[in-house]
Amino acid sequence: QSSVTLYGVADLGLVKSNGISAQMTGNGTMNNGNSRLGVRGVEDLGGGLKASFNFEQGINAESGKTDANTFQRAAWLGLSGNFGSVRLGRSLTPSYYGMAAWELTGAANYSAAANQFGFVAAGSRNDSQFAYTTPNFGGFSATVGYIMKPDNGGNAKYDLNVIYANGPIAAALSYNKVKDFKGNASLGGSYDFGVAKIAASWQDGYKGGKGIAGEQKQSGFTIGGTVPVGAFSVTLDIARDTKAKDTDVVVEGKYALSKRTFAYAAYYKDGEKKLTTGAKNHLGLGIRHNF
Amino acid sequence: QSSVTLYGVADLGLVKSNGISAQMTGNGTMNNGNSRLGVRGVEDLGGGLKASFNFEQGINAESGKTDANTFQRAAWLGLSGNFGSVRLGRSLTPSYYGMAAWELTGAANYSAAANQFGFVAAGSRNDSQFAYTTPNFGGFSATVGYIMKPDNGGNAKYDLNVIYANGPIAAALSYNKVKDFKGNASLGGSYDFGVAKIAASWQDGYKGGKGIAGEQKQSGFTIGGTVPVGAFSVTLDIARDTKAKDTDVVVEGKYALSKRTFAYAAYYKDGEKKLTTGAKNHLGLGIRHNF
Amino acid sequence: QSSVTLYGVADLGLVKSNGISAQMTGNGTMNNGNSRLGVRGVEDLGGGLKASFNFEQGINAESGKTDANTFQRAAWLGLSGNFGSVRLGRSLTPSYYGMAAWELTGAANYSAAANQFGFVAAGSRNDSQFAYTTPNFGGFSATVGYIMKPDNGGNAKYDLNVIYANGPIAAALSYNKVKDFKGNASLGGSYDFGVAKIAASWQDGYKGGKGIAGEQKQSGFTIGGTVPVGAFSVTLDIARDTKAKDTDVVVEGKYALSKRTFAYAAYYKDGEKKLTTGAKNHLGLGIRHNF
Repeated sequence: QSSVTLYGVADLGLVKSNGISAQMTGNGTMNNGNSRLGVRGVEDLGGGLKASFNFEQGINAESGKTDANTFQRAAWLGLSGNFGSVRLGRSLTPSYYGMAAWELTGAANYSAAANQFGFVAAGSRNDSQFAYTTPNFGGFSATVGYIMKPDNGGNAKYDLNVIYANGPIAAALSYNKVKDFKGNASLGGSYDFGVAKIAASWQDGYKGGKGIAGEQKQSGFTIGGTVPVGAFSVTLDIARDTKAKDTDVVVEGKYALSKRTFAYAAYYKDGEKKLTTGAKNHLGLGIRHNF
Repeated sequence: QSSVTLYGVADLGLVKSNGISAQMTGNGTMNNGNSRLGVRGVEDLGGGLKASFNFEQGINAESGKTDANTFQRAAWLGLSGNFGSVRLGRSLTPSYYGMAAWELTGAANYSAAANQFGFVAAGSRNDSQFAYTTPNFGGFSATVGYIMKPDNGGNAKYDLNVIYANGPIAAALSYNKVKDFKGNASLGGSYDFGVAKIAASWQDGYKGGKGIAGEQKQSGFTIGGTVPVGAFSVTLDIARDTKAKDTDVVVEGKYALSKRTFAYAAYYKDGEKKLTTGAKNHLGLGIRHNF
Repeated sequence: QSSVTLYGVADLGLVKSNGISAQMTGNGTMNNGNSRLGVRGVEDLGGGLKASFNFEQGINAESGKTDANTFQRAAWLGLSGNFGSVRLGRSLTPSYYGMAAWELTGAANYSAAANQFGFVAAGSRNDSQFAYTTPNFGGFSATVGYIMKPDNGGNAKYDLNVIYANGPIAAALSYNKVKDFKGNASLGGSYDFGVAKIAASWQDGYKGGKGIAGEQKQSGFTIGGTVPVGAFSVTLDIARDTKAKDTDVVVEGKYALSKRTFAYAAYYKDGEKKLTTGAKNHLGLGIRHNF
C-alpha cells in the first residue's frame, strides 16, 4: 500500500512598511507563509514499519521564482515503526519543531519569536540531517538531529528537542550546538484555556554562532496570547531581547474562509535599536490557501 | 471540496530556417507552444466564493531546462464569486487575454500577430499583478490589471481588456500603459462562419515603451482566416506593421490526433526589413500533447 | 483515455571513503540511484496509436538541489503503435538501454561497468534526440537514436542498440558515434539460472571521444554474478580495463523491505592507477524508496 500526495500553499499579500510604498508581497516577512509545492508519500512495509518521503519546493508567487537549492524546504526519506522514526536528508530542525510546538502564529513569516531569536538562534532547516524521534510516551516525545562533520563545514552539529503535548498543554525544550561553538537553547510552552491561548518562552543563544565573526548574543523571552472568536482570531506576541534591549511586537488577525484558506492582517514592530537597513513598522494583508 | 490537478504540455518539433541546418526545436518560434508542467486547484469556500491557484513552469523538452524564474508561466492565487474574480501574483496579462480572444493560432509561438506586435506591444505576463475580472454580462467581460510602483521598477503599470464573446463572435479591446510612458492598444475580432473563421485586428503601440532607449513605434493590422476540414485545419494570418513596412505571414496546418494531441506544420515569413540576425523564413513540423 | 502519473525515488545513504570522514550521501557514487521526481503519461489515440511523455527532475536529497537543466533526467514526447515507437527530446541513450539490459546492479550509481566504461564510453542521456525503437520480434528489438548536427555542437551523433531479451537470457549490442570521431561499442549478456544470474560484457571505446583533447582509450570486459536468497541478494561485478590495467570491483548487498523499497550496502574498489583525486575504496549504506 502506498500513497503519493501533491500539496502546497499559495500565499500572497500586500505590504506597507514605513518609508516604503505599498507593494505586493510573496515570501516576505509580512506573508503568513511562503508559497510552496510539495510531494509526500507513505508506504506500509508491513510489521508496523513504514517508509515515507517528502520533497518540497518554495515558490515566490510574485514572480514564480524558486530557491537556489530548489527543494530546500524538504528533501528527505524516513522510516518509522514501534521504535519511533528516523529521517535522513534536508529537513526542518528539531529546534524548529520545538519552537513550533508552542509558538502562537504557527511559525508565520511574521512570527515575533522567530524574527527576534531565529529558530533557537539558527535557521529552520538543516542539510544532510540524521534525525531520530522517539515514540510518544504519554505526551512526551524527543527528537535528536545530527549532521556529520563533513556535511556541516567540518564541524558536526547537534540539534534536539523534548516536547510535551497533551490536551491544552504544549511545552518544549530545544537545543542546538555546532561542535566548536556555544550551544543555543529555548524553553517554551503554551496553555489553551479555550477562550484564549497563552504562550511564553525563554531564549538564549548566539545568532551566527559564538566565536564566528559578527556573532550576536541573544537572550530574552517571548510572551503572548491568542483569542479566537468564531472564524476570527487575534494574536499578540512580544519578543524581548533583554541583552540588546530590543522588543519586537506582532499583532495578527486571521479570518478563516474555510479549513484550508484564511485571510490575515498583521502588524509588526521591529524594536531593533541599531537598525540600519529596512523599516521598523510593517503592515501586511493577505490570503493563504493550503491545498 | 477541493481539487488539485496536475497538467501540462509536451511539444517538440523540427525546424528549418533558411541558411541554418534543420534541427530539433523545443520552446522555439516554430513550436506550437512551450512545454510545461503545472498544478492548479479550486476550493469551494461556500456562498458562491471560490479560492483557486495556479503554479506553472516551462520546460524546454530538448534539454529539460526550465526558466530562470522557474514558475514564471503562472504563480497566482485567486478568489472568485458573484462579484467576479480577483487574482494576485505572476499571471498572463489582460492584454494577452484580449488578444487570445480572437487570435487564430491560439497564441501559438509562431503567431504572426504576437511575433509582429507582441501582446499589445508588451510581454505576455506580469509579475506582482493585481487583476480584477468582472462577471460575464451577456457575453461582455472586462479585466483590469495593476502592478504597483515598487513592483514595476518604480513605475506603476495598468493593463486592461474588454472582451465580447458570444456564439460565433469574439471581439476585444486591449490596452496597457506603464505610468510615465505612452500606452499601447489593440482592437481585434473574429467571426466563425463555420466553414471558415476570419479574424482581423488593429494595433498601435511602442515596443519597449515610448521614451525608452530603443523604443520602436509599431502600428498596423492583422488579417487572416482558418478553414477546418474534419480533423484538419489550415490557418493563414498576416500581420502588417504599416509604420515599419514589415509584413509577417504565417501558414499553419494542424491535424488532430485526439482532443488533446495534434500534429502541426507551420511556415513563417518574417518581413522585417532591417533584420540583422536570424532568418527570414522558417518551416516547423511538430507534435503537441496536452495532458 | 489518458493517465498522468507522479512518481519518483528517494535514496539516501552513508558513505565512507578511505582518507575521508564518513558522511551522508545523496546522488553520490555510493548511492543506489539519484533521488528524483517525475511525471509521465500515456494517451490512447485510437487505432493502436499512443502518445506518451515524461518529465523527470533529479533531486539531491541532502540539500534539495536540482540539476542545472532541471528536468535533465527526462523531457520527451513519444508516439507508439504497430510500427514501434518514436521519441523526441532529452532521453536516456540507446547505448544506456543496451547496457541496462544485462548490467547486474540495475545501472546503480556504484555500477562497476558504468563507472569504468561509462554508458558505452558516453553519458547516459542525450539532448535533442530522435529515437526509433522497433516492435519486439520474438525477444529482439532495436533502437536507433540520432542527434542532428546543430543540436550536438556541429557534429551529428548516432546511438543504437540491438537487444535480445527472452526468458532467462538478455543480450545487447550497443554502439554510439559522434560523426567526426571513432565509435564506441559494447556487447554484453546475462543468463539467469534462478539460483544465480551471471553477466559478462566486452567494451571498447574512447572516453570523451577519440581525437578530443584528453581522449582516453578504454577497452576491456566486465564479469559478475548475482545470488538471490529470499528478500536478500548479493552481487559481485568486476570491470577490467585491459588497456589501462585498471580493475574496478563492486560488491553489493540488497535487502527488499517491499517491492518498492530496499536497503543496500555496497563496497566499491576503484583500480585506477593514476588516480590523483578521490579515494580508491568506498563503502556505502543506504535506503532507496521508489514511489
